[in-house]
Amino acid sequence: MDLKEKVRIIENFPIPGISFKDITPLLSDPDVYLETIRQLDILVDTLNEKPDVIVAPESRGFLFGVPLALKRGIGFVPVRKPGKLPCAVISEEYKLEYGTNKIEVHADAISKGDKVLIVDDLIATGGTLEATAKLIEKMGGNIIGIVAVIELTEVGGIEKLKKYRPKALISYPY
Amino acid sequence: MDLKEKVRIIENFPIPGISFKDITPLLSDPDVYLETIRQLDILVDTLNEKPDVIVAPESRGFLFGVPLALKRGIGFVPVRKPGKLPCAVISEEYKLEYGTNKIEVHADAISKGDKVLIVDDLIATGGTLEATAKLIEKMGGNIIGIVAVIELTEVGGIEKLKKYRPKALISYPY
Repeated sequence: MDLKEKVRIIENFPIPGISFKDITPLLSDPDVYLETIRQLDILVDTLNEKPDVIVAPESRGFLFGVPLALKRGIGFVPVRKPGKLPCAVISEEYKLEYGTNKIEVHADAISKGDKVLIVDDLIATGGTLEATAKLIEKMGGNIIGIVAVIELTEVGGIEKLKKYRPKALISYPY
Repeated sequence: MDLKEKVRIIENFPIPGISFKDITPLLSDPDVYLETIRQLDILVDTLNEKPDVIVAPESRGFLFGVPLALKRGIGFVPVRKPGKLPCAVISEEYKLEYGTNKIEVHADAISKGDKVLIVDDLIATGGTLEATAKLIEKMGGNIIGIVAVIELTEVGGIEKLKKYRPKALISYPY
């Protein structure tokens, strides 16, 4: 099944000049959704290291990180926007074009030496994913890779995240 | 497995007087997570109507709605905060204690007559869930039930959502 045919391209969303990749058609058809998870699972196998836990940033990261964690029988840890997680958190700030964003994870969610796989829907500029990786490293986690459904190869994220071994099922230039 | 033992109670979060139910321990242990989904699946069977599609509000609703949809082999439709979905949307505004919130769903995501199950982590005051139900009704969907991991029985949501048949695995008064 060619998943690229299922992704819907919306021009000029959310702002003019951006060609938005809509992954909701992958979710609405259960055969396509299961096939996406199956292909992500195979992509993880190519890392040649078995993750102990999957970490994904809210909220589209949950859509792929959760079923992949359940398929592999490993734990799932959500990375969230500030103020959402009730226990002690570790946080990481990162720059946007204008201003900054912050993400958080429960401080007890990752143990030193855990092999961590980061999952998201899309690798674009890599800002949130790099911040997620730094959070995990602060906690002593060992990042074995980043997998996503889609990568945009010409907007900087793949280069920025290179040391974390980013991989995706579908590529677009931007 | 008694899932209630796995939920972590955090007093005075996010504000004094609130006893927050932390579901992240359900996610970090794959056996507990799978058991949660298994029990939700059985809860859906008690509705005596088979859903065609699962709708869940971001982002904690995704954590349970997604694996339940995949387990049942039916489609998943995300309900999102404004400005996140790229195609034509239907939106619904609802009141908070101070101000209003708005949620959106893709206009083509539900067809007239679809049997829709709404899934979330928690039924509390029912504001977001009632808005989600109204969205689906605007689109001609037939809501067969609402299932959640946790219900708070004394904060109004169960009463407010009664006609949509709310059900949960674990109960607390507040």
